[in-house]
Amino acid sequence: MAEVNAHLAAMHESYLFSEVARRVSAYTAKNPKKELLRLGIGDVSRPLAPLVVEALKSASAEMGRAESFRGYGPVGGYGFLIEKLVETEYAPLGVTFSADEFFISDGAKTDMSALQELFSVNAVAALSDPVYPVYLDANKMAGRKVVLLPCKAEDGFLPPLPNEHVDFIYLCSPNNPTGAALRYAQAERFVAYARRNETVLLFDAAYRAYITEKDCVRSIFEISGADEVAVETGSFSKDAGFTGLRCAWTVIPKKNRLGLNALWARRTAAKSNGVSYPVQRAAEAALSPEGKRHAQQNVRFYLENAAMLRLAAEAAGLQVWGGQNAPYLWVKCPNGLDSWQWFEKLLHEKQIVCTPGAGFGSCGQGYVRFSAFGTREETMEAAKRLQE
Amino acid sequence: MAEVNAHLAAMHESYLFSEVARRVSAYTAKNPKKELLRLGIGDVSRPLAPLVVEALKSASAEMGRAESFRGYGPVGGYGFLIEKLVETEYAPLGVTFSADEFFISDGAKTDMSALQELFSVNAVAALSDPVYPVYLDANKMAGRKVVLLPCKAEDGFLPPLPNEHVDFIYLCSPNNPTGAALRYAQAERFVAYARRNETVLLFDAAYRAYITEKDCVRSIFEISGADEVAVETGSFSKDAGFTGLRCAWTVIPKKNRLGLNALWARRTAAKSNGVSYPVQRAAEAALSPEGKRHAQQNVRFYLENAAMLRLAAEAAGLQVWGGQNAPYLWVKCPNGLDSWQWFEKLLHEKQIVCTPGAGFGSCGQGYVRFSAFGTREETMEAAKRLQE
Repeated sequence: MAEVNAHLAAMHESYLFSEVARRVSAYTAKNPKKELLRLGIGDVSRPLAPLVVEALKSASAEMGRAESFRGYGPVGGYGFLIEKLVETEYAPLGVTFSADEFFISDGAKTDMSALQELFSVNAVAALSDPVYPVYLDANKMAGRKVVLLPCKAEDGFLPPLPNEHVDFIYLCSPNNPTGAALRYAQAERFVAYARRNETVLLFDAAYRAYITEKDCVRSIFEISGADEVAVETGSFSKDAGFTGLRCAWTVIPKKNRLGLNALWARRTAAKSNGVSYPVQRAAEAALSPEGKRHAQQNVRFYLENAAMLRLAAEAAGLQVWGGQNAPYLWVKCPNGLDSWQWFEKLLHEKQIVCTPGAGFGSCGQGYVRFSAFGTREETMEAAKRLQE
Repeated sequence: MAEVNAHLAAMHESYLFSEVARRVSAYTAKNPKKELLRLGIGDVSRPLAPLVVEALKSASAEMGRAESFRGYGPVGGYGFLIEKLVETEYAPLGVTFSADEFFISDGAKTDMSALQELFSVNAVAALSDPVYPVYLDANKMAGRKVVLLPCKAEDGFLPPLPNEHVDFIYLCSPNNPTGAALRYAQAERFVAYARRNETVLLFDAAYRAYITEKDCVRSIFEISGADEVAVETGSFSKDAGFTGLRCAWTVIPKKNRLGLNALWARRTAAKSNGVSYPVQRAAEAALSPEGKRHAQQNVRFYLENAAMLRLAAEAAGLQVWGGQNAPYLWVKCPNGLDSWQWFEKLLHEKQIVCTPGAGFGSCGQGYVRFSAFGTREETMEAAKRLQE
């Protein structure tokens, strides 16, 4: 009998968001006439910017002519896109990188689940609890030991430093699901810890466009010395609305002490053929001044949604975190309900879909996440029902 | 010090095709005026079909309107594409699958390098020698033991059955690089072996559109009983010209004895957010009657290139395999040269870029691969120079 991956076989049957979708489907099957307000999954609702659509169309047309057709692109991404990332995402923060420190991919999820391949199966991963389930799942599937960093309300849901040996630490800031964002002083503590203990930081910056407070880090590389110990992933999904197009990037500085840049380059060359050319042109357009303006409008819009939900939840006497530097609200379940109990109650009584906090880790038990990515209409309606 | 993946760190520094590209760049830097005939990498040269471009544009336009915008799609792919695959790629072969047996991905390379995650690191992989280097690299990076199945000229470069215990076997048919394609009788032997020994077959059918001989299998699922033991990956790259768009599929039947369908679904949910929506619409268009006609024209064109190269190589007294069911020619190096020696000689004396056979495995030593994916002009010129 072929020996399957026992770690994969032992996983809880369903991925968090698949389980939410399953329960929602079961409800709608029984209640076909009830209209649901979907504040569950972190998917955007606003369309792509017109110039992004134009870039897609124009690159598609290029692919239809022999003289401008493009086959396999550079595995790590096209220079035109990487140059824009350097110029618009890092130069304004005072951070300089060369093109071969970037790796374009089809999503932050792809990268954040794959980066663990850089480490031994005997290495120990640390991650916040609660956090985006992908980090935990990817390491469990690989059979790796995971140390959880409990994030408590009294610490603003920010992770403590590990108190045992770990090899690499996932940091998600602004955090999904709590919305907590690392301040400079806190990020400096993690970088100092990583340098002192020869630990690698895997920094997930997918939500950085949502930061509104000045003292939050947008890139871990704003912290001096991070280039020797940190890896960072950014995304076009949450501000430019690329959830259905698929584009992200990872920066692994050449200065990395463990030589992770070369290892990731080797891994990527063997396991990927790069990202769709029209999508990379679309991403380039999203980084143009007009593209950035459009993305900022999206961000403002979703943050207004968040503010609306927050006011309503607070008016209803609920305890609320997040929504200021992130498109998520993190809300304490009322009356001692646990996450899935309140999820079911909200679904059945108010037809609001949220994400149970327990699905993000045991410290998420007793909380739920509301996404502010909905349309204005459904967000207003949800706010109204929450307040009732 | 964080413990890196020692298997990854121990890999030969460069991926085969990166090494070819490096040597070619070094040559062109020194000889900027020499025009190269690139028969190296397996990248297509013919543009996308007009209706595929239209599908891309139209789906892009949908993404620009709120009412038709699409964010995250189903992780395993959209139903509209899977239905077409069932109808056009499997029904004509007499094979039936349901939608949840398909997984759409961004490339056959992605899938063929990732499928090993289904197995324990203690499982043993078997693969042809020579073969596409991705299978070997992915398993080496995971630290897995690999058994090579030597493919010899006297056997038409087809792999023998393993003569020791293995857990899973990669079969690439038509084979990259040799062009050898499994006949029904041979495929039946592998399926019978797999059923008897509880071994999994990972069947890479990326080149199946190139089969011209009737007795070659296009899908491993044409063989009775394969649905319990085999997994198959197909691609839009080599016939519809999607190398720059990125789309492929993997079929894992629900009947699989080890329950690999559910394991892969769980793994995919945690590690992927699916494939770009416009690209899936483009793939759907490529499977329409007009799209298939266009793809078949591409295949015919590249097979004509192959025939031209083959005639020239034979006229030059070279020993040649492949080109009949595959877009690759597999040619024995003349005068006892080894693969890289003839590669260098062809590059320096005839300005022809090929791929050294040794890069595909030790049994590839003493051979090179010529790709027939070039333009007609450069293929004719290469044929002329080969014959000289």
